[in-house]
Amino acid sequence: MNIWDKGFSVNDKIIQFTVGRDRELDLYLAAYDILASKAQAVMLAKVGLISEEEKNQLLEGLDELAHQVENKNFTIEKDFEDVHSKIEFYLTQKYGDAGKKIHTARSRNDQVLTAILLFFKDYLKQSSLKIFELIQILKNKAQEHQSDILPGYTHFQAAMPSSFGLWFSAYAENLLSDLYFFEAAHQIADQNPLGSGAGFGSSFPIDRELTAAEAGFSQLAVSSVGAQMLRGKTEKSVAFALSETCATLSKMAYDLVLYNSQDLGFVVLPKELTTGSSIMPHKKNPDVFELVRARCNKIQALPNDITLVINNLPSGYHRDFQTLKEILFEPMMQFMDILDILIFAVPQIQIEKDFINLKKYDLIYTVENINKLIQQGTPFREAYKQVGKSVEDGSYMPLKDFHTTHVGSVHNLGLELIEKKIDDFHKKSVLFKK
Amino acid sequence: MNIWDKGFSVNDKIIQFTVGRDRELDLYLAAYDILASKAQAVMLAKVGLISEEEKNQLLEGLDELAHQVENKNFTIEKDFEDVHSKIEFYLTQKYGDAGKKIHTARSRNDQVLTAILLFFKDYLKQSSLKIFELIQILKNKAQEHQSDILPGYTHFQAAMPSSFGLWFSAYAENLLSDLYFFEAAHQIADQNPLGSGAGFGSSFPIDRELTAAEAGFSQLAVSSVGAQMLRGKTEKSVAFALSETCATLSKMAYDLVLYNSQDLGFVVLPKELTTGSSIMPHKKNPDVFELVRARCNKIQALPNDITLVINNLPSGYHRDFQTLKEILFEPMMQFMDILDILIFAVPQIQIEKDFINLKKYDLIYTVENINKLIQQGTPFREAYKQVGKSVEDGSYMPLKDFHTTHVGSVHNLGLELIEKKIDDFHKKSVLFKK
Amino acid sequence: MNIWDKGFSVNDKIIQFTVGRDRELDLYLAAYDILASKAQAVMLAKVGLISEEEKNQLLEGLDELAHQVENKNFTIEKDFEDVHSKIEFYLTQKYGDAGKKIHTARSRNDQVLTAILLFFKDYLKQSSLKIFELIQILKNKAQEHQSDILPGYTHFQAAMPSSFGLWFSAYAENLLSDLYFFEAAHQIADQNPLGSGAGFGSSFPIDRELTAAEAGFSQLAVSSVGAQMLRGKTEKSVAFALSETCATLSKMAYDLVLYNSQDLGFVVLPKELTTGSSIMPHKKNPDVFELVRARCNKIQALPNDITLVINNLPSGYHRDFQTLKEILFEPMMQFMDILDILIFAVPQIQIEKDFINLKKYDLIYTVENINKLIQQGTPFREAYKQVGKSVEDGSYMPLKDFHTTHVGSVHNLGLELIEKKIDDFHKKSVLFKK
Amino acid sequence: MNIWDKGFSVNDKIIQFTVGRDRELDLYLAAYDILASKAQAVMLAKVGLISEEEKNQLLEGLDELAHQVENKNFTIEKDFEDVHSKIEFYLTQKYGDAGKKIHTARSRNDQVLTAILLFFKDYLKQSSLKIFELIQILKNKAQEHQSDILPGYTHFQAAMPSSFGLWFSAYAENLLSDLYFFEAAHQIADQNPLGSGAGFGSSFPIDRELTAAEAGFSQLAVSSVGAQMLRGKTEKSVAFALSETCATLSKMAYDLVLYNSQDLGFVVLPKELTTGSSIMPHKKNPDVFELVRARCNKIQALPNDITLVINNLPSGYHRDFQTLKEILFEPMMQFMDILDILIFAVPQIQIEKDFINLKKYDLIYTVENINKLIQQGTPFREAYKQVGKSVEDGSYMPLKDFHTTHVGSVHNLGLELIEKKIDDFHKKSVLFKK
Repeated sequence: MNIWDKGFSVNDKIIQFTVGRDRELDLYLAAYDILASKAQAVMLAKVGLISEEEKNQLLEGLDELAHQVENKNFTIEKDFEDVHSKIEFYLTQKYGDAGKKIHTARSRNDQVLTAILLFFKDYLKQSSLKIFELIQILKNKAQEHQSDILPGYTHFQAAMPSSFGLWFSAYAENLLSDLYFFEAAHQIADQNPLGSGAGFGSSFPIDRELTAAEAGFSQLAVSSVGAQMLRGKTEKSVAFALSETCATLSKMAYDLVLYNSQDLGFVVLPKELTTGSSIMPHKKNPDVFELVRARCNKIQALPNDITLVINNLPSGYHRDFQTLKEILFEPMMQFMDILDILIFAVPQIQIEKDFINLKKYDLIYTVENINKLIQQGTPFREAYKQVGKSVEDGSYMPLKDFHTTHVGSVHNLGLELIEKKIDDFHKKSVLFKK
Repeated sequence: MNIWDKGFSVNDKIIQFTVGRDRELDLYLAAYDILASKAQAVMLAKVGLISEEEKNQLLEGLDELAHQVENKNFTIEKDFEDVHSKIEFYLTQKYGDAGKKIHTARSRNDQVLTAILLFFKDYLKQSSLKIFELIQILKNKAQEHQSDILPGYTHFQAAMPSSFGLWFSAYAENLLSDLYFFEAAHQIADQNPLGSGAGFGSSFPIDRELTAAEAGFSQLAVSSVGAQMLRGKTEKSVAFALSETCATLSKMAYDLVLYNSQDLGFVVLPKELTTGSSIMPHKKNPDVFELVRARCNKIQALPNDITLVINNLPSGYHRDFQTLKEILFEPMMQFMDILDILIFAVPQIQIEKDFINLKKYDLIYTVENINKLIQQGTPFREAYKQVGKSVEDGSYMPLKDFHTTHVGSVHNLGLELIEKKIDDFHKKSVLFKK
Repeated sequence: MNIWDKGFSVNDKIIQFTVGRDRELDLYLAAYDILASKAQAVMLAKVGLISEEEKNQLLEGLDELAHQVENKNFTIEKDFEDVHSKIEFYLTQKYGDAGKKIHTARSRNDQVLTAILLFFKDYLKQSSLKIFELIQILKNKAQEHQSDILPGYTHFQAAMPSSFGLWFSAYAENLLSDLYFFEAAHQIADQNPLGSGAGFGSSFPIDRELTAAEAGFSQLAVSSVGAQMLRGKTEKSVAFALSETCATLSKMAYDLVLYNSQDLGFVVLPKELTTGSSIMPHKKNPDVFELVRARCNKIQALPNDITLVINNLPSGYHRDFQTLKEILFEPMMQFMDILDILIFAVPQIQIEKDFINLKKYDLIYTVENINKLIQQGTPFREAYKQVGKSVEDGSYMPLKDFHTTHVGSVHNLGLELIEKKIDDFHKKSVLFKK
Repeated sequence: MNIWDKGFSVNDKIIQFTVGRDRELDLYLAAYDILASKAQAVMLAKVGLISEEEKNQLLEGLDELAHQVENKNFTIEKDFEDVHSKIEFYLTQKYGDAGKKIHTARSRNDQVLTAILLFFKDYLKQSSLKIFELIQILKNKAQEHQSDILPGYTHFQAAMPSSFGLWFSAYAENLLSDLYFFEAAHQIADQNPLGSGAGFGSSFPIDRELTAAEAGFSQLAVSSVGAQMLRGKTEKSVAFALSETCATLSKMAYDLVLYNSQDLGFVVLPKELTTGSSIMPHKKNPDVFELVRARCNKIQALPNDITLVINNLPSGYHRDFQTLKEILFEPMMQFMDILDILIFAVPQIQIEKDFINLKKYDLIYTVENINKLIQQGTPFREAYKQVGKSVEDGSYMPLKDFHTTHVGSVHNLGLELIEKKIDDFHKKSVLFKK
């Protein structure tokens, strides 16, 4: 059989191989390339490289394109190899030579990089908003289920009493920590590379601080060589942020898949997110959570995927960088989908309650029994021995009405402290600035 | 042959396998376990779980141990499986039952994690200082060599005039960006997990905010479940920060190895850092820079190494986490060595100058020739054609006295802007607070 | 901006998230699912679970579908979630209950796995044929250029005389080694899992050795639990084979990109595979080879990508496995494209000759000068000193007419030995059996 | 604090950085460097580059060293940077100039590579023997526990009846598959690189086929350039083989850790391999299996660790390769330890039996109930509905006395077929040849 031979000639293959999936992936960049082009037009007029009239034409044309993008009827036809040629073609067709001038003192390298960084900045903010929404949901679930006891496991062994309050708030707090990496990635992306040309600047008298201000960059990637080195580095930074967060989400999904098993039975997952089996009528398979886990794990591979492509390349542009779009953009969108699904799913997770009365969980209170004895004056070693013996001879009586007081424990979740952490971050972080 | 069989019994193997290299690696943690234990002692007395006298004894003993660590005569003898047992043994031997009480309301899990986080916080600051030193050195080299032209390469092709000023300042600026990840990692490590016990808190009336203040944590990892989830996450965060920086350093080393070749000959590397060949008297091998590159690349593998161990483990402690010390601690030290070597090496890099006059580099000025024609009124397409033709027919004359004006270009490095970026970060970042 | 929100409802997102890209990717599996279904039908009749007539109907319908696949007009419409439902629907629509019976004693798990393994087996053979073709081309190029001297580099330093003969034959030989991993992956894929059901067999009296024979498996994955464990393992094995080969091809592409630089200028790359620059008329950018390198490096990430998804999952099926299709299938096709492009490109690589006369390469003969002195009786250390001194004082005269005799050296490539290695492997390996 | 500053000068750091851990790691190579040197001596005499007497002296000295290695009193003192200098020093001190001649027509590059390949070949055989032993143990356990029913899980849900027989034999069979990669790695390592010098051969009239025969290589790495390219490739091949096997062992360890939980309780793990908790008297933590899992996962990272170091380096030796010893050698030894521990542990795993009577597992027989109805003539859909309804209304009676007949199912493990697979491989594979 030879079913995968699509009958293309070698020449077609080379073209396809070179263009890759740029046309498709560049749709993500259109809005940002337009934004950067507007900044460029304003600057070119300011420094006298184009006339005011030319500037106005360019801005008009770019606004039309922005409108198309906004209304989702912007397309990149087969005649264009990427979004940038499409935009230039549109401007040139409409305004002749003035249209061509949008490319003055700009190279494809800094143009692409600028669009990518603007895309990333926006993406990091938009996805942070979703993460923030999920954090709030988790915090509310913690509140709601603060009294629902859950066995705490270590070494996969039921160990001590924990609670769904601790469990939900743990994920809220860890997701907040993950946002620190979103901030770091945002800071890296927030450096204007426009004007660095092919990576070595140009002899045109451009004003890079003006384009920075116009396009909304708060810093300048000053050295043109250094600006170009952001290619790859920024992709990897975004990948780090997603990877860090996906580790948290994958763990949460893993927990839920386990908690959904008949052996534990701690939760009932939302119906829309589980499936039955075609041959086993008793199954409730947690497919969507398994896929959340799997896709999160795939996203965790991104930093390494990127490193393998860009590593051991000396400074300066290499065509290799083009493939980073293929590697990164779709998982970025999948990450958004994962967040949407969890925002939909987490509020619907039902907590079971009876399981905690099963005899097998009596043993999770041994520490409480020991602590009680200690508080009554028995030395630890003796208390440990007594409780151990009672477990062995069957006389053990679990101390289920234990009480904890310290912040972050079963009976004192410290949710107001967590809320304060969340609020402080929300107020301070650039991620939530308009 | 069977030379690798060390003649151990299976039982010895199991012990060795279980203890791993803890004794050796825990030396890095000693100072931090002592610091955390002091915080614990102060808190235990405050809440009445130990007496003032017991507290004073514990603090005295811990100070003695801190002194040993400071003077590098602290050891973990073979009788102890880790640093924690050693410290407890010392206190117990000296103060009897009072010594034992240091472990009140603390579990091995939160104890180890606290020491690790304190270690990381200190490490991130110490290594940031070294990176900062290197940034300054690179900025100074940029200043010094701002007029030294270097061919700028794209696609491994000499493309346009660049300069050592741009090259050195590029690495200064990129290393500064890398520090954003050090900040993020520091924020994650800066959350007190002490008191979270085995991961589910305890029924002792402890004061976790007090231990946070005493040990120097600026935030609390509130949820005990969430606190334990920092195990693995924090290691990975540190690995991200090192990985990001090592990508920059590896690229710099790669450039230098290339620039040192006879084919380019742009630099002369410090003698101490190159070696000759035992059979080829003409070779100057850049061994140390190759090893910097290789070790940086090894460090870039760390986030993935860690992920493979901790991924797809549900929440709660697993013994697997112990292996993270083996994976991370030594590369952390190698990273310090790399920084020391570069701080030593970079100032000594000599820049060659004559190579730029070689005929093969004449072509890097074609863009300048074209820009000149454009500035004289020739349309771009025509200028491109003219210059292209002159290259082909041999009449091309490189325009070596081009002049650039914009920030970040050959004749305007914008070093004062870079300096401002550096200073702003230095003033603002917690990494440089005492 | 919120341009990436495609306006889907959460429910649509969940469906899309669950189905993933199965419809698209399953086209690769159609032929193999049909083959396996035919084997199943034959077996079911043999053991009496269906009648002869039913068998004949099923085989007829499956042959029709196979014909559609062969003629590239097989489609999986939106109504079907995957190839398997499409095929069953076709059979059921045509033959009623008989059609449904194709699924007797088969579960989706073993069905999917069987199709995947058959796909891999075929793929490994087809791609081996292309690799073999490339090996022959490289061997022929080695023959053709056996006298063309090339500087041999170590540490990026021109070190000793090498040749294009050695260079081309090196890659021929290394690619042959890579095929050992194709063989290993093939052996793993060549174990029939059909009949293992959901992973625990069934109580139907099926004959698994018969389906193995019918579908062309030379071994049985005996234990049903073990058979299901091939899911993930086989994908990873194929990824290992591709990764190993891509390391070789990436290195070859890297060499060629370097050799194409103005600084080395050892080769002229085929025009169709290089591009000019839009602003620098002198550039000949090796874009296609850079993309070969980048895509090979991306493929080298596959084993890790797969491991991150499947690792730390206990035995038994998990929905996570579904994502492996997304991870692996398209890079598998890209690997084929890479091979096609190299098969097209390598014969066209032109070897430059004059560069070797450049003064900078005189020094690569120092070892020859030393060896000559040794052969004339001078002790090594003395000879080394003499030649070193002549290099320093400028009196050094390169011994360009050196002569080597041993197999695998400049003047004795040992191509007949390499040819024998290739032929032996070709004769012996299952990869080249029909 | 600055506790990690070991007080070394930069110069000491550079030396330490350059030598790395060679002295320690080279102990693994001693025996193989001696073997290769003996082959070299025999060859040098044969082609007349040294006298018969010199050869005899060299062989005598090398045998003495081999004896030291065998008796574990071979050492590499601090004066030597690696094993190779130590051996040469020994020979030279003893035999003067004759000793020096061992290095005739050999470069450090081919010498190191040859020793590494011989080490790998031996290692692959030795570790295969251990894997083979484990396979036999697993097969025997399968035999022993063929009637012990185990719930088969999919999606972490108890799904269908499986058995310990199927489970043990699954791992036996999968480990056998893993050995295919050991074979592939062995084939790659089994190519003589000796005589390839620094990577470009030499003008000495050496006989590389003779050294191949003497050192026990069955093939020649013909092209000297290609031979040097085995550096890195071979390390990665060994890493692939270990990684493939560790995926299997990690999964087995994961299963056992789960099966050891109170919630499942399917097995009792050997006492020596579990630990109690210092605060929870009821815990039986499966520490050793967790560490097996963690170390296996660390080993699974090796191919990527190696790739990151060697990738995007053009052909020819780079000092970077030296770090591969640090990356690979110790995990290779850990792999041996893991095998030893499992060979010790697996026979002692006790299988629990009563758990299968728990009500929660009644549902795993629904498929059997359905199949029974089908065999009695009820159409599948109707049978599925009936059983589903009985589950819902509580009238469901599990069909525990089901019977399977096909190979690889609960009641017909097909162990004789597995045994045949194992025996065939054992007879055929070069891994088990002396």
